[in-house]
Amino acid sequence: MFRNFRMISSVVFGRGSFNQLDDILSAKRKDAFMVFLVDDVFKGKALSGRVPAKEGDLTIFVNVDDEPKTKYVDSLVAQVKGHASGLPDGVIGIGGGSTLDLAKAVSLMLTNPGSAADYQGWDLIKIPAVYHVGIPTLSGTGAEVSRTTVLTGPTKKLGINSDHTVFDQVVLDPELIAGVPKDQWFYTGMDCYIHCVESLQGTFLNAFSQAYGEKALELCRQVYLEDWPDSDDRLMMASYFGGMSIAYSQVGVCHAMSYGLAFVLGVHHGIGNSIVFDYLDAFYPEGVAEFRAMLEKIKIELPRNITKDLTEEQLDTMTNVAFGLAPLWENALGKDWQTVMPKERIKELYRRM
Amino acid sequence: MFRNFRMISSVVFGRGSFNQLDDILSAKRKDAFMVFLVDDVFKGKALSGRVPAKEGDLTIFVNVDDEPKTKYVDSLVAQVKGHASGLPDGVIGIGGGSTLDLAKAVSLMLTNPGSAADYQGWDLIKIPAVYHVGIPTLSGTGAEVSRTTVLTGPTKKLGINSDHTVFDQVVLDPELIAGVPKDQWFYTGMDCYIHCVESLQGTFLNAFSQAYGEKALELCRQVYLEDWPDSDDRLMMASYFGGMSIAYSQVGVCHAMSYGLAFVLGVHHGIGNSIVFDYLDAFYPEGVAEFRAMLEKIKIELPRNITKDLTEEQLDTMTNVAFGLAPLWENALGKDWQTVMPKERIKELYRRM
Repeated sequence: MFRNFRMISSVVFGRGSFNQLDDILSAKRKDAFMVFLVDDVFKGKALSGRVPAKEGDLTIFVNVDDEPKTKYVDSLVAQVKGHASGLPDGVIGIGGGSTLDLAKAVSLMLTNPGSAADYQGWDLIKIPAVYHVGIPTLSGTGAEVSRTTVLTGPTKKLGINSDHTVFDQVVLDPELIAGVPKDQWFYTGMDCYIHCVESLQGTFLNAFSQAYGEKALELCRQVYLEDWPDSDDRLMMASYFGGMSIAYSQVGVCHAMSYGLAFVLGVHHGIGNSIVFDYLDAFYPEGVAEFRAMLEKIKIELPRNITKDLTEEQLDTMTNVAFGLAPLWENALGKDWQTVMPKERIKELYRRM
Repeated sequence: MFRNFRMISSVVFGRGSFNQLDDILSAKRKDAFMVFLVDDVFKGKALSGRVPAKEGDLTIFVNVDDEPKTKYVDSLVAQVKGHASGLPDGVIGIGGGSTLDLAKAVSLMLTNPGSAADYQGWDLIKIPAVYHVGIPTLSGTGAEVSRTTVLTGPTKKLGINSDHTVFDQVVLDPELIAGVPKDQWFYTGMDCYIHCVESLQGTFLNAFSQAYGEKALELCRQVYLEDWPDSDDRLMMASYFGGMSIAYSQVGVCHAMSYGLAFVLGVHHGIGNSIVFDYLDAFYPEGVAEFRAMLEKIKIELPRNITKDLTEEQLDTMTNVAFGLAPLWENALGKDWQTVMPKERIKELYRRM
């Protein structure tokens, strides 16, 4: 069985295409209102003045300093329901991966009863979401094309994975990613780069994901090792292609170990992957060498010694979280992954980070 | 203004994925019937026995020796309407680009009144189509992803271009393209190759179309110049990527001149492009050189001297048809294309073919 991959309905790509948002939404406005969820880093910035909100619409500046929580989704849903009676005509997320995830989750939870925490898992959503639009201002995670919204709930960190999660519309305007701070720009892009290295070298892959993954990797190289005047455009496409490549592929060693770091130390996804990847020469020799060339070119100093104060117990927890992600290890190392990667080897790697 | 590009809702890719068609359709069956439009080259062949038709469904073997006509679409629609009262639950096209175009057109004309000829143009369709599925058995044209269905009507050859034309579901099973005759396999693939050469070298292009176009070209090279065990998979992805690359790009000299050949001599699209391209060294030197290497590797003999019996009047008609396609020339040669490409130069090229 091959996954029947659900895609975004409509995409606009182009410098300045954000200006078309008003037209795009006009066609979807019925007699209700639109909800704009905007990353609060844009509060008071030029972009927030360009949001095409009309009278009666609701604009909420969302905070994503921490990765999105189901409780936060529930409170946003309550806020939207309190704004006016009836459902909005649409929910528009403007921001990085976390903001896009919030927009997806809110659009789903406006039509589905209960708490977002009830739907963490696979295909638990039964009722289609409100029309929802994603507008990335940061590129690399692929959140603009994915069928998940990664949420931290009371008992687990797990996405709402569903065909209904996928955006109805995406607006890809490379001008919007121009002002991202260098570190964030680098680590978010590395999420795409490392993902593609892992999936292309993995054992689960077919020509669909390979075509997308190879091109995403090439675009990352252009962005982080070369100098192109349209490198923002290329990074935006790398993220999109990287996201599409997940259809028939799986991540590997780096993502497994990065989850462990995140669980115990709360390290964010992009930077966590970068920290781990630098220790994976044995698994991805060419990818790691190229990654180091990127670090040097962009002048990024990776955090070091982040595990030095951990107790043995914490290191064991970290190791167990990583070890538990069997599909990732199998993709990377084959059926016999446990002999190649016993827990002690994982723990030893963590000690060095 | 950038095009808001409408995409297929769902895609399955994989060897043997045709076997999932029954499951996919089951989820869409209400209380009506399914209509299968199958290229009649498969009549009596193994594939026709694998079509998951149930009692009450309608299977029509369609003939696409000539490119699809609006009259043919109208007669197929009448046949479907005569089969049972009410609309079918879906229309499934199984075949090459022409069969897929028929399936798109029939699904549109089941819900929209009048003749298919009334809708040749851009965005004339107002009512969404019946759920429709495309299953290519030939790769290169990109018909599986496009928003058009190319039809010959009483007064013009022009597609029904509409967001509603786009398939709801595509099943990409590389096993289905295994038995295509060599010439057809080559010329259909060249439709993709030449299209990408033209669009990548054109003046209308952005990073979205460039990423898709470059990868499509690379996949074509792998298929026609190298030897890969999964070359059918790669060709299927080349076609898909080539189709996606049209979003923000335009074809050029070869397509313009190929339309002229088609108009006067009825030359089919894929072979017409190949015949023309071999004379375009001055415009696409690298592409033409590589194309000739492909001809040699695959051992294809291009038809020659096809214009030798044409009258001056016929050559003039051909030239005028080509010359009239201003956007294609402008994409290839810039605003001043008429000085680079006066009618006499077009006619002279035709004389040599």
